[in-house]
Amino acid sequence: MTGPVLDLAARYQAGDLRALARAVTLAEAGLPAARPLLKIARSGGIRSVVVGITGSPGSGKSTLTDALISVLRAQGKRVAVLAVDPSSPYSGGAILGDRIRMLRWHADSGVFVRSLASRGALGGLSARTMAVLALLEGGGPPEKHCDWIILETVGVGQSEVDVAAACDHTLLVVTPAGGDGVQAFKAGIMEIADVIAVNKSDLPGSSRTVRELTSAQALGWHDQHSWLAPVRKTIASAGEGIESVVEAILKHRAHLGEAGLAERRRLRAEFEVRSLVQERLLRRARNAGGELYARVARGELDAEAAADQLLSGP
Amino acid sequence: MTGPVLDLAARYQAGDLRALARAVTLAEAGLPAARPLLKIARSGGIRSVVVGITGSPGSGKSTLTDALISVLRAQGKRVAVLAVDPSSPYSGGAILGDRIRMLRWHADSGVFVRSLASRGALGGLSARTMAVLALLEGGGPPEKHCDWIILETVGVGQSEVDVAAACDHTLLVVTPAGGDGVQAFKAGIMEIADVIAVNKSDLPGSSRTVRELTSAQALGWHDQHSWLAPVRKTIASAGEGIESVVEAILKHRAHLGEAGLAERRRLRAEFEVRSLVQERLLRRARNAGGELYARVARGELDAEAAADQLLSGP
Repeated sequence: MTGPVLDLAARYQAGDLRALARAVTLAEAGLPAARPLLKIARSGGIRSVVVGITGSPGSGKSTLTDALISVLRAQGKRVAVLAVDPSSPYSGGAILGDRIRMLRWHADSGVFVRSLASRGALGGLSARTMAVLALLEGGGPPEKHCDWIILETVGVGQSEVDVAAACDHTLLVVTPAGGDGVQAFKAGIMEIADVIAVNKSDLPGSSRTVRELTSAQALGWHDQHSWLAPVRKTIASAGEGIESVVEAILKHRAHLGEAGLAERRRLRAEFEVRSLVQERLLRRARNAGGELYARVARGELDAEAAADQLLSGP
Repeated sequence: MTGPVLDLAARYQAGDLRALARAVTLAEAGLPAARPLLKIARSGGIRSVVVGITGSPGSGKSTLTDALISVLRAQGKRVAVLAVDPSSPYSGGAILGDRIRMLRWHADSGVFVRSLASRGALGGLSARTMAVLALLEGGGPPEKHCDWIILETVGVGQSEVDVAAACDHTLLVVTPAGGDGVQAFKAGIMEIADVIAVNKSDLPGSSRTVRELTSAQALGWHDQHSWLAPVRKTIASAGEGIESVVEAILKHRAHLGEAGLAERRRLRAEFEVRSLVQERLLRRARNAGGELYARVARGELDAEAAADQLLSGP
């Protein structure tokens, strides 16, 4: 560790936002200089409410994030927002406009906004996103750290499942339109939701959507200790129903308790380590000249032997 | 290799269906005795049209599979059906009834039906399912091998993506009801479809669904060489439109050509090897006493170091 890195560590620990931004850049790039900072960050324990926001495109995730910032700032909380786009040819488009709207928080030192575009080895979130979350949580002294961290992703499928692995609380956003609720149930997304917001609830059918969601929950498998995600109506664009969402999240936090939160953090670490392993294996497979899998397909190499070869490196 | 194994191999190569069933059982259990059989199977090259069927619950995948068997048998083709259920608490239920219906093929030696319940390390298909596919393709002399292999899965999400990795052709089944087409587009499932069947097309809205799907395709990213999945109306329960689906699949096969098919087989081998690696890593993580990830979460162990530890075994 050389001088500038120690400097950065000291500034990061002091809660300097530019040092935090620099630390995030190092972690996003996967540079070794991020490692001492991560060690500092993680040894600080659980300090932030980490909320992941998921939902189909057009459900208003970004607007809801913005409304959550407003409410949390009014309560005097410091908020970090991490917007991740593990882009696919079909997503993108709207995100730039959404991000520009968030620029209005630029002058507020209690709000830290960052976008990441890193795509994980499995198509969803990357190990680096987990590292960035840890950095956001661990920066600054008690009076300057992030109280809340909001992780918002573009894209569906793998990213949605990954959000649940990365966060303490998963907020699912649906709308009354297009049978969103039923679809979430069918797609197994409801299983990962800790709180559900029926957004755009000024549209027709919002009460029906709430009913559908709660009856779908009643069908699900759960015992007396399990959590039934509260369903809350919101109109994010008008800031309506947002406090109630914040309360539901905190209720879920109380339900988790210290042991539950520690378990969620363990799951996040597991996700990070497994993603790193996956990335290395991909590199090894590429180093094997791309012929490895073709040889298995032709019966020249046993699949088990190929797995052994990948695991033994380099 | 002892006597009985050689015996089994000889009978498997001769096209004995009971030997094939035994080989599948060995591969499903992950037993070493399956390995010489797999070597035989894979060295035979590409012999079967391997079709994966995907679609939301209730779209009629099983009925369509049944109708496909009828049409293919009438054309004198030998057919194997592999039904896979990587079960989740929300799926199941209907599958037993569906499978019972398929018993009507029991007396037909040109139809081989098998169910698997193995769940992959990532929640979708397992490496063993890939091995079973290879065994189905490689059994018997030219005049007795499977002309078509149909892979049908219960469940959504990861399994759907895995089906595309496992097969030569992915048939997506949607219905006119519930905005299935639009949902498939939103969920990125359309990207993996090679042929789309709008099933239950006697229901209202089927022409609108076809229009929605084709206009969604027009929005997608593709160059002049890429394949636009043909959209075909079917009523599987009445056997209507099935020949047209078979034709569309064969058209896609011609589009792939020899190089495209070899690439699909390479992808299947890649899926198998990567799944095996994943299973071993899971075992290693368990051997590490479950404390590995908790130590990362607490900052006592670096995520990179944990990844190294997992990769270095045992």
